[in-house]
Amino acid sequence: MSVFTPVPESVLAEWLKGYAVGRLTELKGISAGVQNSNFFVTTTLGRYVLTLFEDLSRAELPYYLHLMAHLARHGLPVPGPIANRDNEYLGTLEDRPAALVVRLSGRSEMAPGIAHCEKIGAMLAGLHLAGQSYGRHQDNPRGTAWRSASAAIVRPYLPADEQALLDDELAFQSTLDVSALPAGAIHADLFRDNVLWDDDDGQLRVGGVIDFYFAGDDVFLFDVAVTVNDWCTLADGELDPARTQALLEAYHAERPFTAAERTAWPAMLRAAALRFWLSRADDFHLPRAGEMVLVKDPNEYRDILRLRVRGAPPLPL
Amino acid sequence: MSVFTPVPESVLAEWLKGYAVGRLTELKGISAGVQNSNFFVTTTLGRYVLTLFEDLSRAELPYYLHLMAHLARHGLPVPGPIANRDNEYLGTLEDRPAALVVRLSGRSEMAPGIAHCEKIGAMLAGLHLAGQSYGRHQDNPRGTAWRSASAAIVRPYLPADEQALLDDELAFQSTLDVSALPAGAIHADLFRDNVLWDDDDGQLRVGGVIDFYFAGDDVFLFDVAVTVNDWCTLADGELDPARTQALLEAYHAERPFTAAERTAWPAMLRAAALRFWLSRADDFHLPRAGEMVLVKDPNEYRDILRLRVRGAPPLPL
Repeated sequence: MSVFTPVPESVLAEWLKGYAVGRLTELKGISAGVQNSNFFVTTTLGRYVLTLFEDLSRAELPYYLHLMAHLARHGLPVPGPIANRDNEYLGTLEDRPAALVVRLSGRSEMAPGIAHCEKIGAMLAGLHLAGQSYGRHQDNPRGTAWRSASAAIVRPYLPADEQALLDDELAFQSTLDVSALPAGAIHADLFRDNVLWDDDDGQLRVGGVIDFYFAGDDVFLFDVAVTVNDWCTLADGELDPARTQALLEAYHAERPFTAAERTAWPAMLRAAALRFWLSRADDFHLPRAGEMVLVKDPNEYRDILRLRVRGAPPLPL
Repeated sequence: MSVFTPVPESVLAEWLKGYAVGRLTELKGISAGVQNSNFFVTTTLGRYVLTLFEDLSRAELPYYLHLMAHLARHGLPVPGPIANRDNEYLGTLEDRPAALVVRLSGRSEMAPGIAHCEKIGAMLAGLHLAGQSYGRHQDNPRGTAWRSASAAIVRPYLPADEQALLDDELAFQSTLDVSALPAGAIHADLFRDNVLWDDDDGQLRVGGVIDFYFAGDDVFLFDVAVTVNDWCTLADGELDPARTQALLEAYHAERPFTAAERTAWPAMLRAAALRFWLSRADDFHLPRAGEMVLVKDPNEYRDILRLRVRGAPPLPL
């Protein structure tokens, strides 16, 4: 999340009259993330996060907002979007589609231990299970088709050895048959900075899973692989066996892995690494203007992909 | 809230399989309140409150549960009911209607200061405004008709001077015309123990408004009077002018009082006092069996009523 579009306080104060959240007392831009403009909004009645959508169109947004609402009302710590007085989640602010969501409490943990990974594994399975009764559908916007298209755009900017890595991986991925893998709504971006930890009573707990704006329908195992690649990777890019085991075991306890998923696991770790290498390479080589923009290092995921290709570990269960 | 119906862990663990909230890790009865059986439920994915309804029927409950869902999705700190895998809020447990709601964080403040009263005034107005787009309707279950019926039941148990107080007050209340007062969904029981305060970041904030099971449609001013009688009353039963002023001003800033409300205010403080005197006298003189039941002192509200009759202050705005 970042700020591309500034919002004057007076404009927001007026806009909030369409909601039942009280009167504006504080507005603060959030300097994290890569896709939307985000703000902390405090009113006389509560604390909220305001998002102005820079890339996503008005037609795409209901899938995300209603998914968040669905998961929240099924008891998961997901920021529910807030309905305005017309009972709509989606509004317009500074000519952008805009939504207000509940601000959940807690802070990200960028150096997670085994206990964090265990809780994240359980939570990811919970999200997958709760999403099964969600009625809307949208293909994973960073799925197979996007990866091929994105590779074509990024390829010319890469040195020869990276082009070879990319070509080989796309060829390998195209041989995979994922049709037997359990699928449904996935978060698809459950990185450490998209989880808020809350320990107000001394118990470690996921207080919030945020930023669902890459969600879509895809195989659950892809989501597990995205999550493991971020939460369980050591500084050198290899997987930490203890954290990996903890995350996968906790996931398995909520939603047991199938035999087909065991087989597909090493390839899925590669697909997940490829997806983030590509999007980061795109952001890096084809940057866009913005007020406060965070560009992440594409080489991190290039290296993770190389390591997973060299030898990805089997599903340790 | 109290516990009248015990729930074995094994029964709850099985019941929770109908939800997407993970697996049961802890179950604890809550020993507060007077009407339902309540439990803290902790699972692998979150913290919830389970309520078994002892008095309310299955037909009455949708009004309350959907009101809570409506207020939560409009951004207010109200515990949203949790939908099960069939997308229903209302289930059955131990032969009782039962619902699981989000457990909000924070603690009650039984000795509120001016700052608390200010925030409660704003929050109450916010609840009234947000409730205006709620589609379901139900008369206040402790409204005028209930007060007359309840008085007839309780009267024989009272000493002569209290019977006289009751008769005079019912006669006075029957002369009031409330048709010009703004009305809508009201909480009707916004006592100090039904508000959770959260100050995790050093800012005093209402983290939760709970126990909507006396809610109904009635004039907003009745709700304000119930709230003021509890939050702003000194040990001797008189109103604390500073806290009263703070609560009413903050309410007024969100939803300005009308001229008709100014006129009706002293009488409404009496109606609100009468309502709690009656229900407590009923609980006291006609007690019911229960595992952990809290009976509140009826004399507190008899005395408050006497004081408000002797001279209730005008709306100080």
